Amino acid sequence: MTKSRPRALRLRRLRMDTYHENVAYMHRECGVYRAEGFQALSKIEIEDGRRRIYAVLNVVDDARIVAPGELGLSEPAFAQLGVRERRPVIVRHAEPPASMDAVRRKIRGERLAHEDFRAIIRDITDNRYSKTEISAFLVATGQTEMDRDEVLNLTRAMIESGERLDWREPLVADKHCIGGIPGNRTSLLVVPIVAAHGMLMPKTSSRAITSPAGTADTMEVLAQVEIALEAIRRIVRKARGCIAWGGTARLAPADDVLISVERPLNLDSQGQMVASILSKKVAAGSTHLLLDIPVGPTAKVRHMREAQGLRKLFEFVGGELGIHLQVVTTDGRQPIGRGIGPMLEARDVMQVLQNDPRAPMDLRQKALRLAGRVLEFDPDIRGGDGFTVARDILDSGRALAKMNEIIAAQGRPAGEIKLGRLCFDVLAPADGYVTGIDNLQLARIARLAGAPMDKGAGIEIFRKIGERVRKGQALYRVFSEFPADHDFARARAKKSTGYAIGRRQDVPGAFVDF
Amino acid sequence: MTKSRPRALRLRRLRMDTYHENVAYMHRECGVYRAEGFQALSKIEIEDGRRRIYAVLNVVDDARIVAPGELGLSEPAFAQLGVRERRPVIVRHAEPPASMDAVRRKIRGERLAHEDFRAIIRDITDNRYSKTEISAFLVATGQTEMDRDEVLNLTRAMIESGERLDWREPLVADKHCIGGIPGNRTSLLVVPIVAAHGMLMPKTSSRAITSPAGTADTMEVLAQVEIALEAIRRIVRKARGCIAWGGTARLAPADDVLISVERPLNLDSQGQMVASILSKKVAAGSTHLLLDIPVGPTAKVRHMREAQGLRKLFEFVGGELGIHLQVVTTDGRQPIGRGIGPMLEARDVMQVLQNDPRAPMDLRQKALRLAGRVLEFDPDIRGGDGFTVARDILDSGRALAKMNEIIAAQGRPAGEIKLGRLCFDVLAPADGYVTGIDNLQLARIARLAGAPMDKGAGIEIFRKIGERVRKGQALYRVFSEFPADHDFARARAKKSTGYAIGRRQDVPGAFVDF
Repeated sequence: MTKSRPRALRLRRLRMDTYHENVAYMHRECGVYRAEGFQALSKIEIEDGRRRIYAVLNVVDDARIVAPGELGLSEPAFAQLGVRERRPVIVRHAEPPASMDAVRRKIRGERLAHEDFRAIIRDITDNRYSKTEISAFLVATGQTEMDRDEVLNLTRAMIESGERLDWREPLVADKHCIGGIPGNRTSLLVVPIVAAHGMLMPKTSSRAITSPAGTADTMEVLAQVEIALEAIRRIVRKARGCIAWGGTARLAPADDVLISVERPLNLDSQGQMVASILSKKVAAGSTHLLLDIPVGPTAKVRHMREAQGLRKLFEFVGGELGIHLQVVTTDGRQPIGRGIGPMLEARDVMQVLQNDPRAPMDLRQKALRLAGRVLEFDPDIRGGDGFTVARDILDSGRALAKMNEIIAAQGRPAGEIKLGRLCFDVLAPADGYVTGIDNLQLARIARLAGAPMDKGAGIEIFRKIGERVRKGQALYRVFSEFPADHDFARARAKKSTGYAIGRRQDVPGAFVDF
Repeated sequence: MTKSRPRALRLRRLRMDTYHENVAYMHRECGVYRAEGFQALSKIEIEDGRRRIYAVLNVVDDARIVAPGELGLSEPAFAQLGVRERRPVIVRHAEPPASMDAVRRKIRGERLAHEDFRAIIRDITDNRYSKTEISAFLVATGQTEMDRDEVLNLTRAMIESGERLDWREPLVADKHCIGGIPGNRTSLLVVPIVAAHGMLMPKTSSRAITSPAGTADTMEVLAQVEIALEAIRRIVRKARGCIAWGGTARLAPADDVLISVERPLNLDSQGQMVASILSKKVAAGSTHLLLDIPVGPTAKVRHMREAQGLRKLFEFVGGELGIHLQVVTTDGRQPIGRGIGPMLEARDVMQVLQNDPRAPMDLRQKALRLAGRVLEFDPDIRGGDGFTVARDILDSGRALAKMNEIIAAQGRPAGEIKLGRLCFDVLAPADGYVTGIDNLQLARIARLAGAPMDKGAGIEIFRKIGERVRKGQALYRVFSEFPADHDFARARAKKSTGYAIGRRQDVPGAFVDF
């Protein structure tokens, strides 16, 4: 033991995924530290002289897991500390994060300033917040608790917490959907259409957290998505577009931590949503952004008036941050396309690009509409002409060619991906018309079936709203790889199919965007 | 595999204390379940056919911790399931707790009904809430978010969640302090005084969570405190009083879960506090309760107006629950007595009981005042006479005799308890008068020194507010058992002693109760 490491423990890596939380393990009879003394109070601080991390502590009574004299770290903690096994580390009581005082002020109803948000987001980025503290922050700033200046300041703080890309071009286009609609993979169509036009569209996207597929999960069926930033720059310079996973770029890293707590809690806060989306987009260097807000009874936004409020908030914060932002509200009453889950969604996308007659028309139409609006960011395209330009690019095969170019540039996926081995059909319980489809229930069934972990798991939809069905006809088919997942999905579908079957006159009228 | 256990894993107990949270461990290559599929979504459900528990899942890549085909459970989860090792268990996705909908409604600003609180508290008692969900509930119902009817309904729901004692006597006395003042061990004096008078006072108390000692921790220096309910009844029948740990009785069990999240978050919600205290007291069968609210700049309650608001809330909820309740506000500007930490506090208590001339006068005075107020619950004692009766009982040695009777009935402690081997003195930095003592800082130093885990760790105070000190004189002494704890406490005391030394005219005037 050297003087600078007075009470060192030997570091041990424990191959346990503690899911976005740093956990440390100490034997009860440690000899150096009174392990139990650390438990109730906040976190512990672990350092090796140069690097320092924060972790919660579990006390262990099994020397095979951690022996006295050792300090175990779970995978995320071990990765963050970045020190080799068996190296000496010292442990201290962590001071509770100072910025929790601001969170408590917010809970008391006070307004927070930019410095407060900056301190909170810095502490969250540094992993100083426990999950319960993050939850407290989310609830305290949730729902209607933040005014729009606070949302702006939170967004700014999140941008400042990470890297910021600069593409050195005047027009960097992006589109983003607030989420919640299964199968809604329009980005995989909008990017090749827009890039084929020559507009720069470097799309960094996320993996699913609680949904059955994120854009990155679906793209991964077609191409590599974990690409280093330098390679992304090279690809984008040449192809004018990409569809990569954004996780390597450390853009607004606090957002990933917040989302890992927020999603399972199923909180719906407009302020958090705006801060999360716009911080990522500004950090990614986007100058022009088209936002898709689906509205429907089982969408994230359920009423048009709510969509309008959200639009204003996006416009205000986006405007202050200097991003050119357009919002469209779209039909969110049912899934888009036929497939739910990475592989089935990728198939829909490729059918649209290939002008395959089996391609789902709703996905094609929505993608053209969004691509058209993005193209209209181009000063040379007249307002209203975007849709026609987008359709020409798609119908002529130029979008497919561009997609193939992007896929080739990003690299083909490693192994072959197959549809899940196991499947079952969910049948109509009666004659009638489909009067409603529950997005949440279908997403949940697809998730239980194994998506997105098993890329070939998911749902293939046979019937959409307004279509006639006969009793016993299949509404959709569920694919799984694992027998247990097959059973979980089946049990869930048995509880509720997610479909409402009714009379013809109960079919809701056309969705009107206004 | 039997038909009723289609996909069983072998249960394995992992000797890890995951601190009030059920954690399960599954190997990534499980073969039966897709381990990762469980992670992002809520919790998993584990059952053996008869019993069922809920746990969060960690995915493990080390077969020595959990092998494929096994399901590991951390200590609290293993204890809760109550099934032997190697037995088959099956796993399912847990539905998110239905009552989280009510929490989300509360976050949106709605008022909750009794049924909502009942459902929430039932789910929390059943361990269906993750810590982040509990945190969301605490923040949503924190501060000024609950009106007094909601506090009453929450209290009722918490009472209903556990057992309820019935002492079959018309007057069951209790006293309780809202906490926050180190060394404030008046219960250990009030109980023997009141029981010596013949009034029934069966005190079930808690262990420290984030403080350096709880009543149960300090009593444990003198006697056994982990006593089965039947034994408590027998002791109380004979001695008219006891001071036992309340954890064995399953009184308002949801409260323990809530507190394990609330304390480290350092949230101060009057509604939560009232529900927590009154639910425990009503469940413990108390009919008459004296509540001590210390007020001071580093106490839980900092202003008299705040104390008044809290008093009204206690009176309203207590009144509705049919408990006879009196509130006293007391001087909370500094620690009470000389010792902080179980053993040093026990020494203060015994000196007072023994009428030792070295006994701390402030502890004696406060205990007599509180005991006097409790005695006045007796219809035969005139209002205002309680103090004198209490003093007679104490001075005559009857309180000491009663305490010895209670100690003998509960049983002597197992081993001998010694003062910490290591100590250091914290010195006055200048000549002057003690003008303030920071309760929080002294509690924190005593905690870092090892209290309450090491019963002999803590602080011995030499100087109180108003006393004169010379530069270099010791203000207090810190005792530890572990060298690491000694260093932690010393580093903390070096940052700030917790003492303000000033001019004579800066000494605050006498505390006035009104």
